[in-house]
Amino acid sequence: MPSTVSPLAPSDVPEMPAIAGVKLATAEAGIRYKGRTDVLLATLDEGTTVAGVFTQSKCASAPVEWCRGRLKGGGSSNGRSARALVVNSGNANAFTGKNGRQSTAMTADIAARALGCKPGEVFLASTGVIGEPLDARKFDGVLGRLAEIAAPDDWIGAAKAIMTTDTFPKVATATVKLGKAKVTINGMAKGAGMIAPDMATMLAFVFTDAPIAASALQSLLKNGVEDTFNAVTIDSDTSTSDTLLAFATGAAAANGAPKIGRASDPRLKAFGKAFVAVLADLAEQVARDGEGARKLVEIIVEGAVSKTSARKIAMSVANSPLVKTAIAGEDANWGRVVMAVGKAGQPADRDKLSISFNGIRVATRGARDPSYDETEVSAAMKLPKIQIKIALGLGKGRDRVLTCDLTKEYVTINGDYRS
Amino acid sequence: MPSTVSPLAPSDVPEMPAIAGVKLATAEAGIRYKGRTDVLLATLDEGTTVAGVFTQSKCASAPVEWCRGRLKGGGSSNGRSARALVVNSGNANAFTGKNGRQSTAMTADIAARALGCKPGEVFLASTGVIGEPLDARKFDGVLGRLAEIAAPDDWIGAAKAIMTTDTFPKVATATVKLGKAKVTINGMAKGAGMIAPDMATMLAFVFTDAPIAASALQSLLKNGVEDTFNAVTIDSDTSTSDTLLAFATGAAAANGAPKIGRASDPRLKAFGKAFVAVLADLAEQVARDGEGARKLVEIIVEGAVSKTSARKIAMSVANSPLVKTAIAGEDANWGRVVMAVGKAGQPADRDKLSISFNGIRVATRGARDPSYDETEVSAAMKLPKIQIKIALGLGKGRDRVLTCDLTKEYVTINGDYRS
Repeated sequence: MPSTVSPLAPSDVPEMPAIAGVKLATAEAGIRYKGRTDVLLATLDEGTTVAGVFTQSKCASAPVEWCRGRLKGGGSSNGRSARALVVNSGNANAFTGKNGRQSTAMTADIAARALGCKPGEVFLASTGVIGEPLDARKFDGVLGRLAEIAAPDDWIGAAKAIMTTDTFPKVATATVKLGKAKVTINGMAKGAGMIAPDMATMLAFVFTDAPIAASALQSLLKNGVEDTFNAVTIDSDTSTSDTLLAFATGAAAANGAPKIGRASDPRLKAFGKAFVAVLADLAEQVARDGEGARKLVEIIVEGAVSKTSARKIAMSVANSPLVKTAIAGEDANWGRVVMAVGKAGQPADRDKLSISFNGIRVATRGARDPSYDETEVSAAMKLPKIQIKIALGLGKGRDRVLTCDLTKEYVTINGDYRS
Repeated sequence: MPSTVSPLAPSDVPEMPAIAGVKLATAEAGIRYKGRTDVLLATLDEGTTVAGVFTQSKCASAPVEWCRGRLKGGGSSNGRSARALVVNSGNANAFTGKNGRQSTAMTADIAARALGCKPGEVFLASTGVIGEPLDARKFDGVLGRLAEIAAPDDWIGAAKAIMTTDTFPKVATATVKLGKAKVTINGMAKGAGMIAPDMATMLAFVFTDAPIAASALQSLLKNGVEDTFNAVTIDSDTSTSDTLLAFATGAAAANGAPKIGRASDPRLKAFGKAFVAVLADLAEQVARDGEGARKLVEIIVEGAVSKTSARKIAMSVANSPLVKTAIAGEDANWGRVVMAVGKAGQPADRDKLSISFNGIRVATRGARDPSYDETEVSAAMKLPKIQIKIALGLGKGRDRVLTCDLTKEYVTINGDYRS
């Protein structure tokens, strides 16, 4: 694992308040790493609803299949319910065949015994190496002890336990009014590599005390992910383990928060906005901690024929190794941006295209900007955040995607570490 | 430009015979590089037919548009005809707006004056930096001199003049019977970076003395490219300049070679096979000279639901930065191969999947092979050629793709050089 923190890490880590109904605990289960925590237990009070979105991979991990199965089942009067979340780092329990399925079932059993709930109320996520068996017996004893010591406060410790090649823990929080009651939303994520579109994300977990039915929570999550986690790419590689789960304990109902049954409920407006802001904050932190990243890159495409078309073009630019290496080299290489627009397979007219880097227009109407000044642009490329704006001049479609540069460190991290 | 030759360069460079009707000459026109040739003129005898395939980019270069226009036109009784090919390296004349179109027209005019032919019989290709104006006046004088000194023999010199970040010139040749006459096929290509599927290739030119009508040549080329150049990817980035042109002078008709009007002519069978072999040879050389490449990687997918599906899965693996960095690190990381299969969006059943590296099966039926021996596999990963075979167990679809590893040198080359 890299030992130095990404230069793009947020300078302020927020104070993470407690969420009524949620307790956390971490331990060293010795899955793969030495001398650091690698298992997280979050206990959830009775009545907690749950929603989830997962990788689109055709080779999804055993924990992803476990969670999908539990969400499909449904259950309590409140909809799908959850009593625990167990996350381990170091081993993804992916491509592990029958052993993988047995391992998830055994982990859920151990957690259910520790908490006195049903195994089907336990949600699981694993991250780390793919293709090696996960020995779930390592959780025996550990989860029981964690259930005893779980406490509402150590969110940073929880976010650290789920890291792999991440260089900093990723948390975000928001407090917002629901009816007349104050409710809180806390989230955590891990990212670093194997991060690509068309999915949920690597691992991210969001908790709230708001009383929201599972179906409404699922709608919020599905809509919220589109412009947050799904708009981030590190390396175009979609993980087998992407999991984003949201849990609503409903504890704020005791303070007068109204019970929400449908995502379209107008009282949910401020909450919905805060919920997406938490997702967006976590997603940006994932981009800031891309493996080997030295630059945060924001790609804005406007004037496309539709938002979908703008997204495809932005992703084509964000995933281009030649664009990403140019940014690592602090080269405003708009020729490679043109290349990446051209290969996206979307409507584009070379002779209407304009491109700017950090607000400086370098190309306009299909050729270099007449006022182009290499010195000015070169200075702008030295900044830690690079915005590439591409104006297509065809329609009103607009979209935004976050990524990072491609450095030698990415190659080092992934050539040296079987992750 | 890199100064050391790729360790994957072929050990034998073939003797390149002359092709009756084709003469070559190169010069230093000072487009961008210092102290090396950067312009190639190939003169073609009257009656030469031509065929071409080009980049699928929506932002194609000016020379690509020029060639497309000429091929669309048609012309002589023999179909589309060509009298000259002019190629320059150092500047792609792409994303250069009106200036780019003027520049191609001026280059064709200069060549036509030098050769006494029509500008529409001159074919053009440019490779190098994108987005900078190409000053075609630099060809004035140069092309006239080249037309005078052009000679049938220096194919290696010609292949050198079209290189950019290539570390070795790429040529291939075949001699084959057409009717009772011996005909020859010579080809050259340049590659290195911005090499991706769904296109022709960077630049490749194939010449033959066989008398083949333009429409038949076009069919041969279109079919031949599918499993050769279109089955190679270096970095998933499709160039704005990909151009593959084939020229048939027909000079072998004087030796009794039959005139071929249709690609389906049974007399063309041996020729067609040799033609594809020349394309395949050049395409493999492009993969062997991928920027920073230290390993040639062959990806075979079998048991897919169709060839198209197998191609998509093979390309997903070939373009995965995590698979490519693992190979650079000599790590038989089959977990990342599973990931890349999973993200391809094609039918795949994790629990039927088998994977082998250089003939050693590492994973079978959705999990690690029980007989897996890390020492044996690690030794195999040290070889300069790595074959990854993926058996899906679903159907009879099979395909093969060539790529190379992703090394720190790729990042260095593309972070330091505006190409």
